[in-house]
Amino acid sequence: MYRKEIKVVDCTIRDGGLMNNHLFSDKFVNSVFKAVNASGVDYIELGYKADESQFSRDEFGPMKFCSEKDIAKAIGKEEKKCKISVMVDMGRVNPDDIIPQSESLVDMMRVASYVKDIDKAIDLVNTIKAKGYETTINIMAVSHARERELDEALEQIEKESAVDVVYLVDSFGALYSEQIAYLAKKYKRILKTRELGIHAHNNQQLAFANTIESIINNINYLDGTILGIGRAAGNCPLELLLGFLKNPKFDLRPILAILESDFVKLAQEIEWGYTIPYMITGILDLHPRAAMKMRRSEKKDAYLEFYEQLTNEAII
Amino acid sequence: MYRKEIKVVDCTIRDGGLMNNHLFSDKFVNSVFKAVNASGVDYIELGYKADESQFSRDEFGPMKFCSEKDIAKAIGKEEKKCKISVMVDMGRVNPDDIIPQSESLVDMMRVASYVKDIDKAIDLVNTIKAKGYETTINIMAVSHARERELDEALEQIEKESAVDVVYLVDSFGALYSEQIAYLAKKYKRILKTRELGIHAHNNQQLAFANTIESIINNINYLDGTILGIGRAAGNCPLELLLGFLKNPKFDLRPILAILESDFVKLAQEIEWGYTIPYMITGILDLHPRAAMKMRRSEKKDAYLEFYEQLTNEAII
Repeated sequence: MYRKEIKVVDCTIRDGGLMNNHLFSDKFVNSVFKAVNASGVDYIELGYKADESQFSRDEFGPMKFCSEKDIAKAIGKEEKKCKISVMVDMGRVNPDDIIPQSESLVDMMRVASYVKDIDKAIDLVNTIKAKGYETTINIMAVSHARERELDEALEQIEKESAVDVVYLVDSFGALYSEQIAYLAKKYKRILKTRELGIHAHNNQQLAFANTIESIINNINYLDGTILGIGRAAGNCPLELLLGFLKNPKFDLRPILAILESDFVKLAQEIEWGYTIPYMITGILDLHPRAAMKMRRSEKKDAYLEFYEQLTNEAII
Repeated sequence: MYRKEIKVVDCTIRDGGLMNNHLFSDKFVNSVFKAVNASGVDYIELGYKADESQFSRDEFGPMKFCSEKDIAKAIGKEEKKCKISVMVDMGRVNPDDIIPQSESLVDMMRVASYVKDIDKAIDLVNTIKAKGYETTINIMAVSHARERELDEALEQIEKESAVDVVYLVDSFGALYSEQIAYLAKKYKRILKTRELGIHAHNNQQLAFANTIESIINNINYLDGTILGIGRAAGNCPLELLLGFLKNPKFDLRPILAILESDFVKLAQEIEWGYTIPYMITGILDLHPRAAMKMRRSEKKDAYLEFYEQLTNEAII
């Protein structure tokens, strides 16, 4: 698949950081940056722009905050070829703290929002865009959105926002490819003047397949992470995505090298990826939080009890 | 997805046995049989019908041979609700050893064949069909077949064989959903009077997605295995398939129970499933044997060297 408009966004450090409060070592973050930078991937998302008055550096690693100094350290001595992205969660960032893009190492800011908060998201994204950044709105948990409200939110984004890219986000890993195709067509129909993106989760081992389905349906911004690292079942594996995309600008080898040097060990230290509890929340279209809690408990493999508990709750 | 013609074929013991010379304990085989039998799955494939003059019971477990006695032990005291399948590899079975179906616990025999051996496969399948069994021909490694030869093989099967079901087998886990759709349409067009089946491998985390794509393209026989166990990257996870199929005859709970009781432990004892070397052979459309050998060596995580070795060989 070769289409020059396609942009790959590596979210290894950002989404992976959700599994360890972003407590990656500086060396690890720099190694991932170097690998992604060398692979020809277009963007690397390093973390969140969280308000330091709300969150403590004692509890969270630097990539929760992504100050200019934090980002400079992540880049180190490398020549920056890929663009840098950070995510901002509604209500967890102070817009006044955002400096003009011309003074920043950050190229793109992504605003994560539920459908119900779209007014606030548009307001925030317009502020950020005015400061010179590329911007996205990532509409989370789209599998839970009421269709009419989603339509209205998309219309409002098209009319009122200055955003560059709107993301379809399957937060719960609940969507099948046919549903991805349906939503992608809807987004395209309403968001006539914007680019679209896909951020998939792997609860049903469909993150890569759903990303391919998105490409087929004219989505150009593709999120992936090395070895699929990310919250709960994780994301679309970057190595699979680069293997699929035939654009010669991509080089799989730096990603294979860091998989070997750092991710074999990391996978023994932090759990992410397909497990039965995440599959169950995916099939039931639920937030993975109950499964994440269970995986940290002594009952981490009590699959049947977990399934019966969730299906019984769903009936009540 | 509900279509009454759909049949699910569990291959846990058969394809999983390729990773340990079928050396499962009798108790484990019986537990899997009980779980699959209780789940409403239509068929369970227990192993191979291998010629005892060619293979030794000292080296291979009972499910390499699947004598009537072996199968009776696998069923134990259960009331048999699912049908029983065994696979026969061309040249590794003595057709004279096959007793009439009316005297056997086996309901279905599946003949695995490459395109080039299709004459022999048709001959064998006709012999087996005449003995009263349901039959399939599983055309292996379809991603390596020359298109004209595949077309001719399919035409020959339609004209000369008594087979019930013809399987599309992505042995190397190399095919994307669009290619599955293309092949499924071709099979359907030529094999007008037969049912079709899909057996997918998970090298690119596409086994489940490709099985769904097959369903969309009117393939009715679907292979799956518990936790995706199978050769190398393994197969389509049965638990995902049952979660997708909405036929009320299926019950996920017995599968969750055995995942919990037996597969957590098994996954620590035998390796199967998505790893980077299997991904690499999948992307390069190669047999996983080099990756399997590497995973058993001290260089099991030397991904970059492995990739460069295979891509260099491919150039020469």
